[in-house]
Amino acid sequence: MDCRIWQGSRRIDSVRADDRGLAYGDGLFETVRVVAGRPVLMEWHWARLSAGCQRLGLPDLLFWRDALDDFLAGRGDGIVKLLVTRGGGGRGYLPPFDAEPVFILSWHALPDFPLRNSEEGIAVGLCQLELAVQPALAGIKHLNRLEQVLLRRELVAQPGCAEAVVCDSEGRVVEGVFSNLFLVRDGVLITPDLARCGVRGVLRDALLDAAAELGLPAHVGTVSLADCGAADEWFFCNSVYGIWPVRRWGERAWLPGPMTRQCQAMIAAWFHSA
Amino acid sequence: MDCRIWQGSRRIDSVRADDRGLAYGDGLFETVRVVAGRPVLMEWHWARLSAGCQRLGLPDLLFWRDALDDFLAGRGDGIVKLLVTRGGGGRGYLPPFDAEPVFILSWHALPDFPLRNSEEGIAVGLCQLELAVQPALAGIKHLNRLEQVLLRRELVAQPGCAEAVVCDSEGRVVEGVFSNLFLVRDGVLITPDLARCGVRGVLRDALLDAAAELGLPAHVGTVSLADCGAADEWFFCNSVYGIWPVRRWGERAWLPGPMTRQCQAMIAAWFHSA
Repeated sequence: MDCRIWQGSRRIDSVRADDRGLAYGDGLFETVRVVAGRPVLMEWHWARLSAGCQRLGLPDLLFWRDALDDFLAGRGDGIVKLLVTRGGGGRGYLPPFDAEPVFILSWHALPDFPLRNSEEGIAVGLCQLELAVQPALAGIKHLNRLEQVLLRRELVAQPGCAEAVVCDSEGRVVEGVFSNLFLVRDGVLITPDLARCGVRGVLRDALLDAAAELGLPAHVGTVSLADCGAADEWFFCNSVYGIWPVRRWGERAWLPGPMTRQCQAMIAAWFHSA
Repeated sequence: MDCRIWQGSRRIDSVRADDRGLAYGDGLFETVRVVAGRPVLMEWHWARLSAGCQRLGLPDLLFWRDALDDFLAGRGDGIVKLLVTRGGGGRGYLPPFDAEPVFILSWHALPDFPLRNSEEGIAVGLCQLELAVQPALAGIKHLNRLEQVLLRRELVAQPGCAEAVVCDSEGRVVEGVFSNLFLVRDGVLITPDLARCGVRGVLRDALLDAAAELGLPAHVGTVSLADCGAADEWFFCNSVYGIWPVRRWGERAWLPGPMTRQCQAMIAAWFHSA
């Protein structure tokens, strides 16, 4: 694998077998689209990583910014993954007082999602597994992702569906399996509140920021399955693939609407100016 | 660290940076007390590991049994940790179809818990963080342990407390931070049901099995904070330290009772016949 690993600011060859990222998922990650060697929406990625470090009580090293610049030098289009762990040492849940964080950068090819997902939209499924409600870990992109692993297997079992709606254990719509989602109703952008569970995707945050700047009405709140079915338009989004409009969900069908197209145009500009 | 690592049945030197245990906590572990080179309650540990493999769709290799025997040859008293991951490869939540599981054995010193914890009992705290309810992952000892990391930090902030009561998000008592718990009321052993969250400790299962064999009345069900306060006796247990009777919780005090002592005597026998 094309990767570099540091402990603190010291390069190391491999991850220790007692790393707390491995032992407990005690860490965070970011998956960043890279266009012509430049990471897209990187300030949002750094902001989420910092917020996650603060939540978990991990140090947030400025050094990582330089390490990323250096790692991306001379690269083209692809994905860079950043992974931070609390580091190695000890056995037992209590972090050792002298733990030094581990930082891993790895380079990956762009996934081969069909272009028609963005252009024509996707068929969407519905997952049976419900996300657990845990406000202490909601929003951040931590390494405890077994729910997503199970959900991803559920999605594979729904042929033709590129994404699926995921609810929490109280029946609220939260997100997709690997995306956030937005509905449009009466000209208002609506996306689920993620204070109880789910991942605050950077593209979701960037879209909300842009809506505020442009004066587009946007609302973060409770979303039900019925709201999805009744939406004028709706779409899934993440920072790797951009926006996939919903074309079909169960018996209902949609065409990509004007608000969806406007958001896609904004994102295309961001991707090009990365 | 004193450890050995395999991918499938092939020894490897280090864990890959793209191992799914590290990326997503996609795996399981067991922490086993070793007495004079022999692992205590090992059949219960293997049973839980197998159940976890089945739940996560991981292969369960017979080879691991031989690898453990070999690793323990010539050792004395301590802890052996078994860690299984789905293996390396790919980026994204979907397991690669050709993923080969990684198996790590590591050797650790016994933690230096004071002997008086078992003899005189412990002071117990109460954690504010509530466990999320996720039946799909309840009971198994998977690698998504951020809740326990946060709880362990809460426990450190409660001076004098060796363990603490942990509830779920609906207010039910579930377990301790790194232990299970049993109450005794009117001669009946009572332990919380773990179908919604929590870890089914092997010592808890072994105690329930022994109670059934000996005809001791035991009940697995819903436990409230009020039930803890009203218990005739209660104790925490795990397979590393055995049983710690509760001596103090808030304003209330207890003496280790006869049922607690009977359970301690059984466990002492198990530890010696390991």
